Amino acid sequence: MAGPNVDGTERSTQRIEAFSDGVFAIAITLLVLDLRIPAGEGSDSGTLLNAILGLWPSYFAYGLSFTMIGIYWANHHYLFKLFAKTDHGLNLLNLLLLMFIAFLPFPTHVLGTHWPEEASRPAAVTFYALGLLLPAVAWLLVWLYASHNRRLVMPQLDHGFVHKLTLQFLGTVAVYALAVAVSVLDHRWGLAMCTGLTLLYLLPPRTPVYRRSNEPSRVKET
Amino acid sequence: MAGPNVDGTERSTQRIEAFSDGVFAIAITLLVLDLRIPAGEGSDSGTLLNAILGLWPSYFAYGLSFTMIGIYWANHHYLFKLFAKTDHGLNLLNLLLLMFIAFLPFPTHVLGTHWPEEASRPAAVTFYALGLLLPAVAWLLVWLYASHNRRLVMPQLDHGFVHKLTLQFLGTVAVYALAVAVSVLDHRWGLAMCTGLTLLYLLPPRTPVYRRSNEPSRVKET
Amino acid sequence: MAGPNVDGTERSTQRIEAFSDGVFAIAITLLVLDLRIPAGEGSDSGTLLNAILGLWPSYFAYGLSFTMIGIYWANHHYLFKLFAKTDHGLNLLNLLLLMFIAFLPFPTHVLGTHWPEEASRPAAVTFYALGLLLPAVAWLLVWLYASHNRRLVMPQLDHGFVHKLTLQFLGTVAVYALAVAVSVLDHRWGLAMCTGLTLLYLLPPRTPVYRRSNEPSRVKET
Amino acid sequence: MAGPNVDGTERSTQRIEAFSDGVFAIAITLLVLDLRIPAGEGSDSGTLLNAILGLWPSYFAYGLSFTMIGIYWANHHYLFKLFAKTDHGLNLLNLLLLMFIAFLPFPTHVLGTHWPEEASRPAAVTFYALGLLLPAVAWLLVWLYASHNRRLVMPQLDHGFVHKLTLQFLGTVAVYALAVAVSVLDHRWGLAMCTGLTLLYLLPPRTPVYRRSNEPSRVKET
Repeated sequence: MAGPNVDGTERSTQRIEAFSDGVFAIAITLLVLDLRIPAGEGSDSGTLLNAILGLWPSYFAYGLSFTMIGIYWANHHYLFKLFAKTDHGLNLLNLLLLMFIAFLPFPTHVLGTHWPEEASRPAAVTFYALGLLLPAVAWLLVWLYASHNRRLVMPQLDHGFVHKLTLQFLGTVAVYALAVAVSVLDHRWGLAMCTGLTLLYLLPPRTPVYRRSNEPSRVKET
Repeated sequence: MAGPNVDGTERSTQRIEAFSDGVFAIAITLLVLDLRIPAGEGSDSGTLLNAILGLWPSYFAYGLSFTMIGIYWANHHYLFKLFAKTDHGLNLLNLLLLMFIAFLPFPTHVLGTHWPEEASRPAAVTFYALGLLLPAVAWLLVWLYASHNRRLVMPQLDHGFVHKLTLQFLGTVAVYALAVAVSVLDHRWGLAMCTGLTLLYLLPPRTPVYRRSNEPSRVKET
Repeated sequence: MAGPNVDGTERSTQRIEAFSDGVFAIAITLLVLDLRIPAGEGSDSGTLLNAILGLWPSYFAYGLSFTMIGIYWANHHYLFKLFAKTDHGLNLLNLLLLMFIAFLPFPTHVLGTHWPEEASRPAAVTFYALGLLLPAVAWLLVWLYASHNRRLVMPQLDHGFVHKLTLQFLGTVAVYALAVAVSVLDHRWGLAMCTGLTLLYLLPPRTPVYRRSNEPSRVKET
Repeated sequence: MAGPNVDGTERSTQRIEAFSDGVFAIAITLLVLDLRIPAGEGSDSGTLLNAILGLWPSYFAYGLSFTMIGIYWANHHYLFKLFAKTDHGLNLLNLLLLMFIAFLPFPTHVLGTHWPEEASRPAAVTFYALGLLLPAVAWLLVWLYASHNRRLVMPQLDHGFVHKLTLQFLGTVAVYALAVAVSVLDHRWGLAMCTGLTLLYLLPPRTPVYRRSNEPSRVKET
């Protein structure tokens, strides 16, 4: 659309956001493919109803992961609006993030399918918590790369705000790592942590703070 | 694309519409994955033809759900054009709507697969009707949230028109709830209601009415 | 993005094209899901190689349907550039077209899976030819609806050109209907027709002709 | 959006890029569908953990193919920014490229599923290397077609740079062909080559060189 940049790299974050949006939308919609009545069940209305109701762990996992990916979608846009530009390194780290987002349907499937067997719950929950930890780690890497020495973030972004976000994303990784550890010890508390964190992330994100200097309107449209 | 808003939230409905469009397009296209010749059938042309023809309940369910999601796609755009802006709450309710839209392939699959077994039809149809009720409820919530105290709708939208839409969406939820109840009692009438409602929604949507004051051209481009 | 139209309908073809593009892209990419090594095969390199090579009918069907959907994608854009606007009826007929495009992976799967069993080839090829006929019929309906009384086509489009396209699309439906009939009688000739037609449609589309009146530059950008 | 071109062909590369982006995003996200716990495994936490860990060849194949498609996505954009326009031939060759990209999940699945059986590794790795060779060949064809006689590339692109890219893409095809041959002889070296090449392509692409004539600012926005 725009002509070529002299150095052939993409400066604007627009295309990387569109691609990421595509992956988010596809991953979130693929979750439904894991909802299946087990073969051979449901030959009459009573057993079919039981089979449908018996999938509640899968519905729960579906709802949880759908919400999680939806939050990542919203927050991804929030984050990339803080970036003034992109570069090759950010592209690669963003690809890592997408790799982990696109991976989420698998632990979701494992959680939904194996929860009914009580003996396999600890492994299923731990794997699910790990599935949530991985994108949180990639997210932190994206942020650290972009904000280090203010490499890619908007120049007028407030220093304290950048620092606060760093702490917040570090904290997210820490609590998901804790959720993995807790899941090993007690899968109920582990799942409760995963659910609680997802609900927590439904809260609106922190309002960005831009530096105020003598010039009042520093927030420029790019 | 645009620079950052001072408070970091997305005001325009453009990106939420693009993401929703993606989910609609993916969910509608995933429906085909549920069309499958049962393993071991179709070893010659006669049995293969029978197997292909025998999938008619799945074709019917495919066509019905495809049409339904297509209508939601068209109406979603219609609705969001009535909104002057979006906010965090609308994002979350829209995500709930998408969660139920993306869920539709599952009851569609259940209906297509279990219709051939006569004894399991009541449960299959009831579940399908429920699958249509859920997005209707989320749709109503989206509208109530956006139109309550004219929170997000275009300021020049006519009061009477807003009221009429509220009644219409309440009515939709009511008839789908009725379709669920009817399906429990008589699955043929239940399915007929679901089909009839889908056909009804093929009619063009209600033309929006904008307030006319002394100033003749109140309909502004945003 | 744009403000609301007074009557709430979408005049521009932009959003319907974007949605259609999404369905084309998803349907074309879902085709790969039907490529599967049969369970239990391929326990050593020799049998795995045989299993991989033995899927050649599926590769052929994959390539044929991929090309076909790709052609529809390109031609869809070509067609919609001839339209000055869209309306509710066109939306519905386009949805019918998308329904048949999104359906194509199923007859593709049937063709690839059942070709190896010689006795089931006639039914498999006939169903595949039918799968190609259906979108051709919907395409014709889209065109007839849009061009009838020049309802939606660009006003400056040459009458003779409109007439030629009508004949061409009628001809397409006729040859695919013939391919279905031929497949019933001789599946080899039926498949040859389907393949030949696909190759034929790889040719560039007919150049639109715009009316030339005394004013030399009638072709306006909308 | 733009009005019709007089000859009805698409000059801008925008729409072909958007469609290609869609296919890249879908193919990359579909990779997760091949991650599955074998039926019947994982009835308790120990066996489930074993089954999850036992999928490591699938995780490896997932990561490798995800990275590969991600690189193709980034490079596709890089390449198309060198093109001043598109034509029917480029559309078809690009479709061939997409056909091979969308095919990648299948050899990825074969590699992940059949690696655990040691005897079937040579065929699995050879097929995977072939799966990487095919899009490299299509990529070369796209480039040769577009750059031959400077048919579609930006007119101000430096001749030497065009020549260097040709050599680079020829080299890519050569090394992937070599990887196929090596895989036949020794699958470990074959897989090492595939992995090494993917890592190599993580390096940033070559900076385009534009001709400098007496007029200093030849790089125009189109």
